[in-house]
Amino acid sequence: MDGQMSTKWPIVKYEDGQLNHTDDEIVIEFPLTIHVNNDEFATMVCSPTHFDEMVIGFLASEGVIRTKDDVKSMNIDESKGFAYVDLHANQITSQQYYSKRFIGSCCGKSRQFYFHNDVRTAKTSTSTTTITAKQCLDLMRKMQQSSVIFQSTGGVHNAAICDSNGIIVDRSDIGRHNALDKLFGHCIINRIPVRDKVLVFSGRISSEVLTKAAKIGVGIVLSKSAPTDLAIKLAQDLNITAVGFIRGSSFNVYSHPNRIIEG
Amino acid sequence: MDGQMSTKWPIVKYEDGQLNHTDDEIVIEFPLTIHVNNDEFATMVCSPTHFDEMVIGFLASEGVIRTKDDVKSMNIDESKGFAYVDLHANQITSQQYYSKRFIGSCCGKSRQFYFHNDVRTAKTSTSTTTITAKQCLDLMRKMQQSSVIFQSTGGVHNAAICDSNGIIVDRSDIGRHNALDKLFGHCIINRIPVRDKVLVFSGRISSEVLTKAAKIGVGIVLSKSAPTDLAIKLAQDLNITAVGFIRGSSFNVYSHPNRIIEG
Repeated sequence: MDGQMSTKWPIVKYEDGQLNHTDDEIVIEFPLTIHVNNDEFATMVCSPTHFDEMVIGFLASEGVIRTKDDVKSMNIDESKGFAYVDLHANQITSQQYYSKRFIGSCCGKSRQFYFHNDVRTAKTSTSTTTITAKQCLDLMRKMQQSSVIFQSTGGVHNAAICDSNGIIVDRSDIGRHNALDKLFGHCIINRIPVRDKVLVFSGRISSEVLTKAAKIGVGIVLSKSAPTDLAIKLAQDLNITAVGFIRGSSFNVYSHPNRIIEG
Repeated sequence: MDGQMSTKWPIVKYEDGQLNHTDDEIVIEFPLTIHVNNDEFATMVCSPTHFDEMVIGFLASEGVIRTKDDVKSMNIDESKGFAYVDLHANQITSQQYYSKRFIGSCCGKSRQFYFHNDVRTAKTSTSTTTITAKQCLDLMRKMQQSSVIFQSTGGVHNAAICDSNGIIVDRSDIGRHNALDKLFGHCIINRIPVRDKVLVFSGRISSEVLTKAAKIGVGIVLSKSAPTDLAIKLAQDLNITAVGFIRGSSFNVYSHPNRIIEG
């Protein structure tokens, strides 16, 4: 059910002082409109892979479902870009509709959204997992190696759910929260417990990324990039260990450093 | 009226096999809730600079205002993160509310949004401007040089409105469309005609970035990064020249290459 991440496209290239016609590999941005119980719920712009996981992860992230048992059926029309989800519950609350009609595909967390909706779904972590500094470095290296084929077109975000031994599942998307929704959906569909897992991510830890991590339920977030101040505050509140700038043999721990041990 | 882009924060740093307490510079992610005619309209997460431009640019981008004459008054409460805008028109249509409650701070374009709202505001370009290949390279270099101070904390997007001589105005933000809204607002507030200007941007040309460019009204978009396929299709439709991967002495033209001339 999964399409490609990129496609060939005719371009004009300027090189050595000349403009010439050639072809280039272009990353695909695919709009998927989700209908829930026959009502239009949201449109996401994404890389066209793992639609089922993304839809399930997104609906869980929005608090519309809690487990896969809440879903009666799901049909995805890839040719038209529509997903039709039927829930066992006849209706979802207007509150759920209200908070998020437009789904950007990168970062950004609305205070309104946080207050109205995330409170129900973003869990304070009870994870007792610790990992060593060396495992932090290893997990980031493993995720980057596994996503090499996607990096060829540039600009997709990579994310993985790991335990201390390595990657359990990794996903890529042009939209950072889509990559996280795909992971979330994968864990829900396959009933993978996440409390003691680690989220490894290629992009910046914005407040939205941190909130998604809390919704997924992990206690540790590892990033190649920097967090924002708002993300650090949320991580402190939600008992999540946020680690950034994992590069080479060094990194920074921004919150709850007790889960990261020397060695 | 403008705050800082970053702030000092205590962290734990792992380096040379040891965890040590130190300080780091962290990029600020600031939530600003916009009220229009006493109704909550949207919450944006942004870098706390140029709030007035961002709000005006965003409202114009949403089709709520067309010129600054539509705004009766605007007050920004920086301590609480609220902007209060009064329009001369008593009410805005529910359609305008409907399309976008949640404002992500990066990329991503909803098909729903495009159909319902952008049709009114994303203009097909009538620009007759051309620039030379050398000017493409020069403008990108100038924008990158001007944004050096912001790059120190990493991860902000830079954007500039230029003519063939150089930068007219440049803005930075953690959210890519915020940077574009700030430019848009600046041009509206200062009544700067944009039809024959050039938009220079640090990030990927997603469909949302391309749509913003069309709303601002420029005919040429220059990026350091790649476009998506959806953005190229929109650029073709809206008669916009999209140029990407401007690095060193080469670049790619993805649509309407007639505006880029050798030399």
